[in-house]
Amino acid sequence: MTILESVIKAITPQSSAYRDKAHERLAQLTMPFWALGRLMDLAVDLAGMTKSMAPPVARRSVVVFAGDHGVVKEGVSKYPQEVTCQMVRNFVNGGAGINAISRVVGAKVIVVDMGTAAPLDDLVKEGKVLSRRIGPGTKNMAAGPAMTREEALASVEAGIGVALKLADDTDIFATGEMGIGNTTPSSAITAVLTKQPAAKVTGRGTGLEEPEFHHKIEVIERALALNKPCADDPLDVLAKVGGFEIGGIAGLILGAASLRKPVLLDGFISTAGGLVAHALCQSSAEFMIASHRSVEQGHSFALSHLGKTPLLDLDLRLGEGTGAALAMSLVEASVRILTEVATFEEAAVSGALG
Amino acid sequence: MTILESVIKAITPQSSAYRDKAHERLAQLTMPFWALGRLMDLAVDLAGMTKSMAPPVARRSVVVFAGDHGVVKEGVSKYPQEVTCQMVRNFVNGGAGINAISRVVGAKVIVVDMGTAAPLDDLVKEGKVLSRRIGPGTKNMAAGPAMTREEALASVEAGIGVALKLADDTDIFATGEMGIGNTTPSSAITAVLTKQPAAKVTGRGTGLEEPEFHHKIEVIERALALNKPCADDPLDVLAKVGGFEIGGIAGLILGAASLRKPVLLDGFISTAGGLVAHALCQSSAEFMIASHRSVEQGHSFALSHLGKTPLLDLDLRLGEGTGAALAMSLVEASVRILTEVATFEEAAVSGALG
Repeated sequence: MTILESVIKAITPQSSAYRDKAHERLAQLTMPFWALGRLMDLAVDLAGMTKSMAPPVARRSVVVFAGDHGVVKEGVSKYPQEVTCQMVRNFVNGGAGINAISRVVGAKVIVVDMGTAAPLDDLVKEGKVLSRRIGPGTKNMAAGPAMTREEALASVEAGIGVALKLADDTDIFATGEMGIGNTTPSSAITAVLTKQPAAKVTGRGTGLEEPEFHHKIEVIERALALNKPCADDPLDVLAKVGGFEIGGIAGLILGAASLRKPVLLDGFISTAGGLVAHALCQSSAEFMIASHRSVEQGHSFALSHLGKTPLLDLDLRLGEGTGAALAMSLVEASVRILTEVATFEEAAVSGALG
Repeated sequence: MTILESVIKAITPQSSAYRDKAHERLAQLTMPFWALGRLMDLAVDLAGMTKSMAPPVARRSVVVFAGDHGVVKEGVSKYPQEVTCQMVRNFVNGGAGINAISRVVGAKVIVVDMGTAAPLDDLVKEGKVLSRRIGPGTKNMAAGPAMTREEALASVEAGIGVALKLADDTDIFATGEMGIGNTTPSSAITAVLTKQPAAKVTGRGTGLEEPEFHHKIEVIERALALNKPCADDPLDVLAKVGGFEIGGIAGLILGAASLRKPVLLDGFISTAGGLVAHALCQSSAEFMIASHRSVEQGHSFALSHLGKTPLLDLDLRLGEGTGAALAMSLVEASVRILTEVATFEEAAVSGALG
């Protein structure tokens, strides 16, 4: 049995007993029935995930997987490839969006090199970046498979390993990523796994204008026609049109789910990782929380395929884990509602009339 | 000049110079242009409100105004009137939804008695409730004016006084309320000030079923027909179909705006207070932040009258200030984006190609 197979075997659905117990308490709180709406739905989910009436969420890790993409040769991004590594340095120095938002919610930021074009040896040596390099970026998926099947499996297992390593100090995970060009493989994965045409699930990424945007759709269509990824074989999809960091995200989700720990999905790229995890193990979706709806148009298709309604809708399109980190405070609010709000009986408040 | 007149005179619009400065910095941050969307819009607003490139938001006060309503005699609520005072005791004991959520964001909860049916002398003596009682609840607006014009003015000036009193220890306010029956006056105010028919801006409040829901609409229609509140005279509207706590909220907003401090509006009742404040002084709306979209159908009309798009949409319908408190973490995120994220130049990250 591979690591992947054994982790998948360990994933079981949410506990319906704990979901019911949470529902029962929430229905008695000093407020009109279900008056805190989706925060209460989330509290039920958290109880079901963690098998606890006081789901632990205090120790928070945002895991940012970095990787580069051969497909940038096709001109699918507005930014040069060197920005991936430059942004990793920015993360390490605390100067990026994900650092600022993680400080709001008291989350740790862990950066994992899954395969940037240039190595990051100095940061790895200083203990500031975890190295799980599969290779110096993927190959150009518009000219052949992005990676081998072995590399795809290795990327997922690397993500699983990161989840297991961090689990001792982590109650809840958030997924994040950095990789110039990575909306392109995310659209390709989403097209295959949600069975939508590429044009429907492709957006403007970092801000493409009209001719480049249409070119990006053509590149994805070409990659799909050339590689023929098999929708029933998620590792094949990841290998042919995926990315190392997307494999890492899928693995993180599977590892967390195997330990019954919730995972906040960030935006489009993270949710592409979520699609891969779900395709490998359906029950893993029961441990995913959709943090926000991205501006990228493919994101809505991916979320609805996973049966998720996001918590936030704030026109975000940054990635890095920013939306997922932001939603940590909503998760904490849900838990506090479940654990700290008095019932009608406890507070001696009169119930509804008649 | 009344206190109200002098406070209105002190309110000036947002600073366009600080809005521009904030926009300029945000456009240079290490991310695709405006990739944090509405958080960046909010950062511009906060800079414009506070005339600061580091808008202070650390000291947070949720002000919960409590008041009772004579119109409950008409059977417009599912809960008995005594619940208003019982819930005030719950707030003081830290057991309500607003307490749990305020703890998430490190906000203080201040409870103000604007006129509950029963006095709360013990809590006032213990310093746990601020007493600004206008009377023992309003009169039944379906049988005459809810209060006198003098009482309406007094309720607004009481709210102003609370804002000024708390301002020394408060960077940002959130509005909250408790008052059994108070969606009824809120719908009446919204109908008058947004010029909509009562049926369009009336919802099910704490959870009315079909016959009671239609009865509630009829009660509001009767109150409007009988009292003929004048849409161009906000104190007349507040007096005839308002509530003491709604006047308090309007006053809090005006007081905060006069000191250039942001105010997070909670749900439908708070936004009815916002409508009154806006009608008294249009520029006060520039200091309001819409925290969430309530399930109450009138809320969307009130928000769009104020030109506001809410930050959250989580099917909340509790009030108390819960949605406003929840949004405090988004406000903090906005400020940290403005103040803590590096620019392309500072972080030596390459800009967009071409």
